[in-house]
Amino acid sequence: MQVAVVGATGMVGRRLLGFLESRKFPWRGLRLFASDRSLGKKIEVGGQTYRCQKLVPGCFQGLDLVFFDASDEVSLHFVPQALKEGAWVVDNASVFRLEEGSFLLVPEVNGDLLRSFLKKIPVVPTVISGPNCVVVPLVMALKPLLPWGIQRVVLSTYQSTSGAGNAAMQELEAQSRSSLDQKPLVAKVFAHPIAFNCIPQIGSFQQDGATSEERKIVLETRKILERPDLKMAVTAVRVPTFFCHALSIYLECEYGLDLAEVRQALRAQPGVVVLDDPSTASYPLGISETYGAQGRDAVYVGRLRHSESSNTLQLWVVSDNLNKGAALNAIELGEMLISVLH
Amino acid sequence: MQVAVVGATGMVGRRLLGFLESRKFPWRGLRLFASDRSLGKKIEVGGQTYRCQKLVPGCFQGLDLVFFDASDEVSLHFVPQALKEGAWVVDNASVFRLEEGSFLLVPEVNGDLLRSFLKKIPVVPTVISGPNCVVVPLVMALKPLLPWGIQRVVLSTYQSTSGAGNAAMQELEAQSRSSLDQKPLVAKVFAHPIAFNCIPQIGSFQQDGATSEERKIVLETRKILERPDLKMAVTAVRVPTFFCHALSIYLECEYGLDLAEVRQALRAQPGVVVLDDPSTASYPLGISETYGAQGRDAVYVGRLRHSESSNTLQLWVVSDNLNKGAALNAIELGEMLISVLH
Repeated sequence: MQVAVVGATGMVGRRLLGFLESRKFPWRGLRLFASDRSLGKKIEVGGQTYRCQKLVPGCFQGLDLVFFDASDEVSLHFVPQALKEGAWVVDNASVFRLEEGSFLLVPEVNGDLLRSFLKKIPVVPTVISGPNCVVVPLVMALKPLLPWGIQRVVLSTYQSTSGAGNAAMQELEAQSRSSLDQKPLVAKVFAHPIAFNCIPQIGSFQQDGATSEERKIVLETRKILERPDLKMAVTAVRVPTFFCHALSIYLECEYGLDLAEVRQALRAQPGVVVLDDPSTASYPLGISETYGAQGRDAVYVGRLRHSESSNTLQLWVVSDNLNKGAALNAIELGEMLISVLH
Repeated sequence: MQVAVVGATGMVGRRLLGFLESRKFPWRGLRLFASDRSLGKKIEVGGQTYRCQKLVPGCFQGLDLVFFDASDEVSLHFVPQALKEGAWVVDNASVFRLEEGSFLLVPEVNGDLLRSFLKKIPVVPTVISGPNCVVVPLVMALKPLLPWGIQRVVLSTYQSTSGAGNAAMQELEAQSRSSLDQKPLVAKVFAHPIAFNCIPQIGSFQQDGATSEERKIVLETRKILERPDLKMAVTAVRVPTFFCHALSIYLECEYGLDLAEVRQALRAQPGVVVLDDPSTASYPLGISETYGAQGRDAVYVGRLRHSESSNTLQLWVVSDNLNKGAALNAIELGEMLISVLH
């Protein structure tokens, strides 16, 4: 299998190359593409060294599968070229996610869509999008709760700087040092200081007062859960952490929820780990000596409780935004594609 | 007026002494009390130097007003003594807040309760509690919205380490430095690392899965707004910031809300500042070059928007937990008491 990674030097691209190795992804040939400033850069994958190449006409020829982990602009421009040149595409950008009839997939949640599609339709390469890095853990946690008839989701996020890329993490690090040493802060990536501060804006503002991030979370969640009517209120907040996104979720359901049954349903969901023991202060965390989500694959769910009625449920969800939120989900989509095509 | 401050060397106590000066609080005599390890410590207030004294029987005699900014244990033990020895008490601890018939006050929200009480009843010194540092900004933001018939409040908090005291802030600082230098972290105050991490536990866990902090927020809000039926779902989270608490609030109301009218109502609320201009990325923040809440008096409200229906409202609220969340509210309670008694 001839595979390529576009955006190989970025945060998600690096993690994806790691997963190619650690999950023994069945590639025979590998091409790495990067932006101009990383051209020629050497990267070792599976004991071999690859040089980062430039995206040019014809560059995808002979490839079976291309992972895109670059910007919206790069995907918009080069995904159609990759398809034309005969490769399947797994895309982590947002540009094709909401297109009518396009695939927006989390394998454990709605991977069957692709499986049944490929059984019916002659196989022509297409693009499969991975969702926003908040949406992946959100739908992983909500999927097992659908039988209770979710009517409303109120979500506040605690999103790490790695979601905004490498430069954003460096800004958090540099500003944190400056702040601790009482030196002036330099802000380039974020509109406001991020060190020891919370910024209630991710993306740009829409007409209705929501941000583009909040809009993505609503629309992608509705599409994946096939619930266009789902009531959702989202506030997306950047917090001064490096890795992992945390989600404070409130649900209203049609039917009363028994917490023991909810736990059982969540435990039965592949990819979800329930971590919920108040007696030992165990709940999902990004960083922890024993079970932090950072660098791990699972979506961790805890702090399960009702508010005033048994039709409501509160949850606290943490997962590594670069892993299941992006690179791991993409690899799993690639694995699923291979298993269906062969 | 003879005044005392219990807990004078703590985070809130220090701020309170600053407000005594800056707001020209009419004190003639001042006594400062502190825990054993700060006994004899000298503190300058208004150009005079005071020595921290020990709490002993009779220590409140001759005082008119005592501010308590110490622990629940200290208030439980010494507030009754202060009342017996003839002083009024403004208490920032939680122990008397929910007592039937006790005063739990934010002057701009429900200060009239005390005013009308003192007009009817012979003047006997009593205790006036200031609310939890999340509840103060919450009720300041909700009060002007009560005419729309608030039915449900879903709240996720972003609470700074100063809410857990001086040692907690030092832990954030030390752990942040260690983390940046890739050295091992030492955790004493918090159950988990707080540097570059979010901890979804403040206080201890209750039987129903909520934390003591979440329970306080619900019960105190209902008491202050005189809405024992108010549906509330709260998730209280410690984030790696030093100052200011931020609140992501979702409301369901009986009547449709017009955003222009909501803004007008919020602007008319004393102590509230509306900061809500997406076009200039203006919204409430703890730290900002121009309008950060840190060290300021106001409760900042922004990111006003509907979710799917006009009966819903989302808000983002930030205020300095040590100022309006604690010390400033206490001073204002003292000022109100003086104006009513004299």
